[in-house]
Amino acid sequence: MSIEERLVALESRLSQLEDEQAIAQLVASYGPLVDAGLPDEVAGLWTADGVYDVDEMYLGDQEAVRAMVAGEDHQGLIRRGAAHFLGPAQVTVTGDTARAVCHSVLVVHHRDKFFLARAGAHLFSLVRATSGSPEPGDDTRGWRIQHRTTRVLDGREESRALLGAGVTGVGLPETHRPR
Amino acid sequence: MSIEERLVALESRLSQLEDEQAIAQLVASYGPLVDAGLPDEVAGLWTADGVYDVDEMYLGDQEAVRAMVAGEDHQGLIRRGAAHFLGPAQVTVTGDTARAVCHSVLVVHHRDKFFLARAGAHLFSLVRATSGSPEPGDDTRGWRIQHRTTRVLDGREESRALLGAGVTGVGLPETHRPR
Amino acid sequence: MSIEERLVALESRLSQLEDEQAIAQLVASYGPLVDAGLPDEVAGLWTADGVYDVDEMYLGDQEAVRAMVAGEDHQGLIRRGAAHFLGPAQVTVTGDTARAVCHSVLVVHHRDKFFLARAGAHLFSLVRATSGSPEPGDDTRGWRIQHRTTRVLDGREESRALLGAGVTGVGLPETHRPR
Repeated sequence: MSIEERLVALESRLSQLEDEQAIAQLVASYGPLVDAGLPDEVAGLWTADGVYDVDEMYLGDQEAVRAMVAGEDHQGLIRRGAAHFLGPAQVTVTGDTARAVCHSVLVVHHRDKFFLARAGAHLFSLVRATSGSPEPGDDTRGWRIQHRTTRVLDGREESRALLGAGVTGVGLPETHRPR
Repeated sequence: MSIEERLVALESRLSQLEDEQAIAQLVASYGPLVDAGLPDEVAGLWTADGVYDVDEMYLGDQEAVRAMVAGEDHQGLIRRGAAHFLGPAQVTVTGDTARAVCHSVLVVHHRDKFFLARAGAHLFSLVRATSGSPEPGDDTRGWRIQHRTTRVLDGREESRALLGAGVTGVGLPETHRPR
Repeated sequence: MSIEERLVALESRLSQLEDEQAIAQLVASYGPLVDAGLPDEVAGLWTADGVYDVDEMYLGDQEAVRAMVAGEDHQGLIRRGAAHFLGPAQVTVTGDTARAVCHSVLVVHHRDKFFLARAGAHLFSLVRATSGSPEPGDDTRGWRIQHRTTRVLDGREESRALLGAGVTGVGLPETHRPR
């Protein structure tokens, strides 16, 4: 290969790795930010029209995510003590779209004890929200959540299907297919 | 350094990082795939003669892994609700062999509640199963599990030794020494 | 861009990614090493004057960390069975200093059952302890923990603030501000 070809190959491989890392880090920041109770910072992980679809709760845009985090239900939960503990994300990047899949457990504190309130399956679809190349110094490389689906791992088929489709890309729910 | 030397150094460092990332992602895909109940996809993480050695269960090759995931015990467990939740892998790559170590918890669902059934220590030994360089677009870079040992963290010496050896490389069980 | 400029940009971006990876791996090695009960290896993650500040315990240097891991309280805990299970670290690198934030759960084994003893918030401040460039083959790239603060997620304001400041960099406790 010529020097030019080697440089192009290096730039492309490095860009792929940076994207995977940025998305894994974005997912890793969700739990700490939501347990810190920061509405703007959590909402900022989503696109303006990004969806948060979690079993009992469907939030249709970034503003609804902000309102949920700021709301009394969520603030009360974290003031009593809670950990939205997400596992390491398995990430697949395809150009300017990506998906990430992981487990979570929700731990809640009550009367000096900790309880396992839920185990969940997560599928995130992400887009590179900025046009063109990422800005230098933007650690997220422009990635934002377009759609997040979370389902409880209580045996329902949908939760198991979410985990499988998230890793393999086969059988993704319509809301998670790249447009 | 000359341009040639700098390119070679970049290619080598990038390759190392890609390998570490590929292995961390492979380990991160195990829990979602096994909780999705996909026999071929789980088995595909192992080499043809790869071993799965988990306390009460010793599976001697890929075919046995496939049969376990497809079997009624495992399918029944995930139909009742289960999370094989693995932590972030600590990865050491040495050429075409590697090891990864992590914790796990097994969460099971029963009558609308979630229980912590087990905490475990994992040691994975991996090999680059393909000959020569990884294919472009192969996100796994050819890595497959050659041997996985999982032991319950109930205080037994073996589990603790597994965690320590996995990180330090000192005192690895014979089955996990590079051949 | 000239070839020289492209090489410099690649070297700088790769170095950033290597640092983030090294720190995430260092944090991922803590739980396995402490559950293995290895005093020197755990202490080796800290700088000589590095601090470990965990609710009920304040350890003011590396030697105190070593003594804690070697001590009867900790060794007794892991001989009964315990998992210090940390989540994936969200890492921010700024030159030769860095911070990492994550959740943890402490799982303890008692009479054939596993209990969720605690959920915690972690903030690590790290420094590149070596002068100049990292040594080739040093997977840690010279990173060591300068200060670790862990607080229980029982609803107290301090724990929530730690998670938020860890991700955003805003409102860091004085002990975690780069000097």
